[in-house]
Amino acid sequence: MRMVDIIEKKRDGHALSEQEIHFFVDGYSKGEIPDYQASALAMAILFRGMEKQEIAHLTEAMMHSGDVIDLSSISGVKVDKHSTGGVGDKTSLVLGPLVSACGAKLAKMSGRGLGHTGGTLDKMESVPGTTVSLTEERFIHQVNDIGIAIMGQTACIDPADKKLYALRDVTGTVESIPLIASSIMSKKLASGADTILLDVKFGSGAFMKTLESAKELATTMVGIGDSLHRDTRAILTDMDEPLGLAVGNALEVKEAIATLQGKGPKDLVDLVTIAGGIMLEQAKLAQTREEGEKRIQEAIASGAGFEKLKQLFASQGGDISYLDHPEKFPLAKRQVEIISDRDGFVTHIDSLAIGVSSMQLGGGRATLDDAIDMSAGILLHKKVGDKVERGDVLAVCHTNKEGCEEVFANVKNAFNLSDEEVATRCIVHDYVC
Amino acid sequence: MRMVDIIEKKRDGHALSEQEIHFFVDGYSKGEIPDYQASALAMAILFRGMEKQEIAHLTEAMMHSGDVIDLSSISGVKVDKHSTGGVGDKTSLVLGPLVSACGAKLAKMSGRGLGHTGGTLDKMESVPGTTVSLTEERFIHQVNDIGIAIMGQTACIDPADKKLYALRDVTGTVESIPLIASSIMSKKLASGADTILLDVKFGSGAFMKTLESAKELATTMVGIGDSLHRDTRAILTDMDEPLGLAVGNALEVKEAIATLQGKGPKDLVDLVTIAGGIMLEQAKLAQTREEGEKRIQEAIASGAGFEKLKQLFASQGGDISYLDHPEKFPLAKRQVEIISDRDGFVTHIDSLAIGVSSMQLGGGRATLDDAIDMSAGILLHKKVGDKVERGDVLAVCHTNKEGCEEVFANVKNAFNLSDEEVATRCIVHDYVC
Repeated sequence: MRMVDIIEKKRDGHALSEQEIHFFVDGYSKGEIPDYQASALAMAILFRGMEKQEIAHLTEAMMHSGDVIDLSSISGVKVDKHSTGGVGDKTSLVLGPLVSACGAKLAKMSGRGLGHTGGTLDKMESVPGTTVSLTEERFIHQVNDIGIAIMGQTACIDPADKKLYALRDVTGTVESIPLIASSIMSKKLASGADTILLDVKFGSGAFMKTLESAKELATTMVGIGDSLHRDTRAILTDMDEPLGLAVGNALEVKEAIATLQGKGPKDLVDLVTIAGGIMLEQAKLAQTREEGEKRIQEAIASGAGFEKLKQLFASQGGDISYLDHPEKFPLAKRQVEIISDRDGFVTHIDSLAIGVSSMQLGGGRATLDDAIDMSAGILLHKKVGDKVERGDVLAVCHTNKEGCEEVFANVKNAFNLSDEEVATRCIVHDYVC
Repeated sequence: MRMVDIIEKKRDGHALSEQEIHFFVDGYSKGEIPDYQASALAMAILFRGMEKQEIAHLTEAMMHSGDVIDLSSISGVKVDKHSTGGVGDKTSLVLGPLVSACGAKLAKMSGRGLGHTGGTLDKMESVPGTTVSLTEERFIHQVNDIGIAIMGQTACIDPADKKLYALRDVTGTVESIPLIASSIMSKKLASGADTILLDVKFGSGAFMKTLESAKELATTMVGIGDSLHRDTRAILTDMDEPLGLAVGNALEVKEAIATLQGKGPKDLVDLVTIAGGIMLEQAKLAQTREEGEKRIQEAIASGAGFEKLKQLFASQGGDISYLDHPEKFPLAKRQVEIISDRDGFVTHIDSLAIGVSSMQLGGGRATLDDAIDMSAGILLHKKVGDKVERGDVLAVCHTNKEGCEEVFANVKNAFNLSDEEVATRCIVHDYVC
């Protein structure tokens, strides 16, 4: 088998066989196939696409390029969720405890924030004492013990994807649905959960700009799950504004706490209720999504979800007095109000601009080596649909930095206002299963 | 400027600017742009194509990546021709002396044979004593002296093309008209002639399989010449059979001699007459192609072309008694007749099969390090359109090797016969100027 023949076959619009796809992934992982052939194939795939079976074979080959986590020693159904990346996305810290409180097992490997998107691990570390570095043994023990654990990736998961993604990033081959779908799904499948719920974001601040492209990605990923016999479903959620009101690590943890105490913003509550309902149905802990949603609402109302959050942090060394008394989280030295200079209704809040601004205020990283200021970030006071009067506070910027005038201007400009009233929609636009 | 942005621009179907194309070619030549980005761009070009101006900029950038030969010290119009590669293609050894005898200057850098195609330099060396290694000084002096010289490439011509071609060969990006056209034209333009005539072959044995694709390539190359103000024209010629009757080095030289003595096969005579007519018109040595063709015919009839061939070899050290007495060329030990086992008319002779067979008989190289047996090759006794009776000789294989039964079978199978009479066509199908 020769790599050039595989490239030409895809270039000419033919489907690759399972053997050909494994030949590529194995050879590329081992360094036997050079980058210049991999990038040519990636570009051919970008133009020609891949059939459902090809995408499944690609995903499976990448999944097996490294360790595949064995969660079989955890009793019960292991659920997992994955978001394609949002601003203000603290969903895992709310949804995880809720589904766990309802009996599902969540053994989650999570990531760090980079650029305009935050990471669950960073948010957790804003609670003093919390560690996200667990041994696999302790990780599995904790899930068996309390039903939930969230840790950083330790095992060598999906090295083929890491190598291929780095190559795609510099060769103009990121924007291919088959390559995006197999990249996400190979990592998720290697993480070992029984069920996967994908939260595919769309809109100006998301990787997928349109509902159509997001739906195509979602359908492709659900198709992979189908081919590889893993219960995979997806919701399509709106990123026309940041999720909830808080952007920034400690600010988001405080919002997660409030949400689990029944005081959450509507979009976040809607999202965790709908997503949680689906995950409980996937875990066979509810007969229907509706029944699952009801159980999620009860877990909020009863405080069971909040108790689970405290167990999660306590098990991972966190000082849970911060959860009971969120006023203990240190505030940034400066809280700068962003004031509206006109009347109107909020039509859109540029998530990308808010995410980048939060990073620039100290709340995120431009490169993986940067340090994070846990207290920095942005609290929105207005959301899409809200009426605004000249002089109203649109948002408050939290920072320990001096200056930042340009950032404040960008936050203000992120708010788009119109004279006419704006209809609000549910954050979850569609469901693919 | 970032290479990834250039790749994405082409991927998305936009035309690249002159600056972007030079950034790529210069950076790639210097090793600053890695192979994996160049192959991704090549694949994007293959899918998206290039506009006329982009192709001209790419050609110009590659042409200037190495030495550009200065022929200005040669008086008169320097003409050049280039064939996209054929089997039995001894055109340069016939056409060169003819146009030179008519007053044009041919300062030609030529190549060696590889695979199923022969090379002019190898054919010349079948005349004992001949050298194709000339200094640039001697080369230019010879052209000023007798109007013609043919040598191997010494200067560093078009290193960007060499590097890019090697990459395209292993990344499935050879078959792109803009890349093929710029590759050929950048080398031709760097060779310094005033006018270029391209002989674009099409058919089963040629690089371009169809008349349509050959015409697209021809039109693109003529467009490059137009953009870069170099008189460039093209003829489209049939490779449904080898050119002439002889395939193999000494065999082809003998056929070139016979043709210059008025005893050439019809297709070869037609080709050099038409091509020569165009080249003389390009050189302003004839008012029209028809006048040019007439002068070519006269140069054959008068023996002026043959005299020029002798001058060429004499100037380059060749023993011209071989030209006057072609029977001096040593014959291979074995001459094996290939016999037809049926009656019919020849519809097609697979040029690729004949070229490969000649190589296997010792007449060519599989790799550039292989030695060539000058006497080996194939003499066709039947051409397309000829009537064949069972027991007739189709061809004679010349070889010093033992065995070769499989090669003889392949030569026989290269002949396609039908029961019905076959109309013959002129080898030159179209003209692009």
